Amino acid sequence: MATSKREEATVMSELFADRAAIGTESRLAQLFGGQLGPDGIKFSAGNPNPDLFPTAQMQNAFNTAIDTAGNHLFEYQEVAGPVHLRQQLANRVHQTAGINATADNVLVTQGGQQAIDLVAKLLLDTGDEVAVETPTYVGALASFDQYGPTYLDVPMEDDGMDVDALTSLLKTHPNIKLVYTVPDFHNPTGVTMSVAKRKRLVELAEEYHFYILEDTPYRDLRYHGHSLPAIKSFDRHGRVIFISSFSKILMPGLRTGWVVADEMVINKLRQLKETSDLESPAIMLHAVSAFLDNNDLNQHVANMLTTYRNRLDAMLNALTEFMPDTVKFTRPDGGFFVWLTLPENVDTQALLQDVVMPQAHISYVPGQVFFAHQNVHNGLRLNFSGVDEQQITAGIQRLATALTENTVKVQ
Amino acid sequence: MATSKREEATVMSELFADRAAIGTESRLAQLFGGQLGPDGIKFSAGNPNPDLFPTAQMQNAFNTAIDTAGNHLFEYQEVAGPVHLRQQLANRVHQTAGINATADNVLVTQGGQQAIDLVAKLLLDTGDEVAVETPTYVGALASFDQYGPTYLDVPMEDDGMDVDALTSLLKTHPNIKLVYTVPDFHNPTGVTMSVAKRKRLVELAEEYHFYILEDTPYRDLRYHGHSLPAIKSFDRHGRVIFISSFSKILMPGLRTGWVVADEMVINKLRQLKETSDLESPAIMLHAVSAFLDNNDLNQHVANMLTTYRNRLDAMLNALTEFMPDTVKFTRPDGGFFVWLTLPENVDTQALLQDVVMPQAHISYVPGQVFFAHQNVHNGLRLNFSGVDEQQITAGIQRLATALTENTVKVQ
Repeated sequence: MATSKREEATVMSELFADRAAIGTESRLAQLFGGQLGPDGIKFSAGNPNPDLFPTAQMQNAFNTAIDTAGNHLFEYQEVAGPVHLRQQLANRVHQTAGINATADNVLVTQGGQQAIDLVAKLLLDTGDEVAVETPTYVGALASFDQYGPTYLDVPMEDDGMDVDALTSLLKTHPNIKLVYTVPDFHNPTGVTMSVAKRKRLVELAEEYHFYILEDTPYRDLRYHGHSLPAIKSFDRHGRVIFISSFSKILMPGLRTGWVVADEMVINKLRQLKETSDLESPAIMLHAVSAFLDNNDLNQHVANMLTTYRNRLDAMLNALTEFMPDTVKFTRPDGGFFVWLTLPENVDTQALLQDVVMPQAHISYVPGQVFFAHQNVHNGLRLNFSGVDEQQITAGIQRLATALTENTVKVQ
Repeated sequence: MATSKREEATVMSELFADRAAIGTESRLAQLFGGQLGPDGIKFSAGNPNPDLFPTAQMQNAFNTAIDTAGNHLFEYQEVAGPVHLRQQLANRVHQTAGINATADNVLVTQGGQQAIDLVAKLLLDTGDEVAVETPTYVGALASFDQYGPTYLDVPMEDDGMDVDALTSLLKTHPNIKLVYTVPDFHNPTGVTMSVAKRKRLVELAEEYHFYILEDTPYRDLRYHGHSLPAIKSFDRHGRVIFISSFSKILMPGLRTGWVVADEMVINKLRQLKETSDLESPAIMLHAVSAFLDNNDLNQHVANMLTTYRNRLDAMLNALTEFMPDTVKFTRPDGGFFVWLTLPENVDTQALLQDVVMPQAHISYVPGQVFFAHQNVHNGLRLNFSGVDEQQITAGIQRLATALTENTVKVQ
């Protein structure tokens, strides 16, 4: 009987841990919306463009890995990942981010998401204070949520996190354990943190004794201006845990990310990875390593930049041309996203469901999910990396029309 | 300066969560010992024999996966794993374990270890009561440890967990949330649970309202006698969460395991997997799926059984011939392990380090690590799957000599 089965389910779900209690949907579950129809244009994704994937070269790399190691490749291996790959990554963060690291400072993870989760598992007991940008990356919040932290909000400015606001916060909350930031082409706003703020953040970490989690998946995807040194490059006392991944610069399906930190932190994270999934599949890591040996990743990234730069420029041009004055938007120099701020009385979630999807056949991500306290309703995230220039121009025009007609109405 | 760096490290480590506090080494860190020299024989591993890996067929499967899906294979995919693979796994557990399941009852995980970790994450708040076999699988304890449970010990008998003892325990501890068991060729003892006990365990779960975590990595590796139905096959009310993996029957490097459970449980575990690592690499899952489509896994397993049966028989024969009467050992019908019980005053950890490794050049796993409370010191685990028959006979003879000389001495 349906009823008794449902009752049964409710009773058994009472055994779930607090973090998994029925009703606590993961924030990530809210991210991906419904169908848009044949003329639909999706600005809601967060994906790299699969047309740019070096699939043939990666297939060669998989075959090289198997041909080289044979049966041994499929045995249990090292938790931290192969030393050759860790050395390649240490070299790469030195070259691209100004970080001094050896292979012993690197842990390879299942994408950036596992890196975030392991850092949260390392640091957070229930109730521990974590300072986050508002808005911030939803996948980090979803992972932090599992460890029951107390979130403290730090506003964003055009040059990154408001470090003055963080300083004030630290005076009243000196026990903040962790400050999480996406300093380069921030998800969801596209904003980049200035060098001055990077340095001040490290000084604050030394003074107030907290860890900085520097999350940099978009770091190498700069379309205008010059690369800035990583926050980690200013770190003298092991305050900064730097993470990145190949998801955006190579392929997300590789599920390959990494952590760069002091050896003491890496050793602990490695233990936590071991209890989480023993190790990542060696064939993935050896294939990535063979790809890096036999291909020029920097050249691959440079080739992608042209495509993405054109899309960013198309989006900023269309926003400038079509959006009403009441809609503010960021002007990123890289990454995948532009952030729109609508008048305060607009709820972008309701607007999406009631108007934008059904009438304009456009999707975006309503901003609420990117706020730790889900208390801001008038922002939205647009993705430009997965949509071509023609679609961007047409889509932004349609979105602008819908916003003009409807946000004027609700004002 | 070295000193100030060490002080720094100590201070920063004060920020670690309770689960990761300095000094709390993972149990898994204790598992793998040192070098044995050229005549060394390792009974300490837990690995399948790599000579039996179908590496060429798996290489074909990787190429098939890439050739079929192209760039799309490297995009973000479904968290639960491809529906075709989940259907293959649902069919397999029906065929080999008597479990009725659909693809919606299956979640694909990063090996069995992630399956265990996700179930622990789903169920365990700090202090929650978990009943475990003594001894039990160390990797499960290492994962459970992260969630701060209270362990309750259930003794093992020759036909599996002492269900009478569990019944008594439930009367004084009616809030036990989870009973963890390895019913088939148990790690570390090799013991198999009787059908009668499997049924009683499900009845107890209904009466006392707990989940059973049925962990079955060795289930298909039976060398004598007939396969028994899974505990899950007797489950009518969603009390049993069944997990298994390809690590032992195919290759551990695939890092592919799975959970079979009620849809409500699967949905929650999928959310927790998403916050842990977003998803497993699609290429791994599509390659495994292509392998299953194009090869006969049952035939592959049947071919392995001959090798492993000969090794088990060689080990039991050698133990019978060479061990002193004071050493008791189990007589498994499958799996990878035999468990030895020495006189109560023997500490197998000290014996290994002081005598067996340096003098006999033999390794085993001292049993203490397999006990939740690490309070039993006279057991040890021998692996026979990774050692050939000649080595087994010679190694057991050398081990028996060392034990005879030294356990007599310490008595």
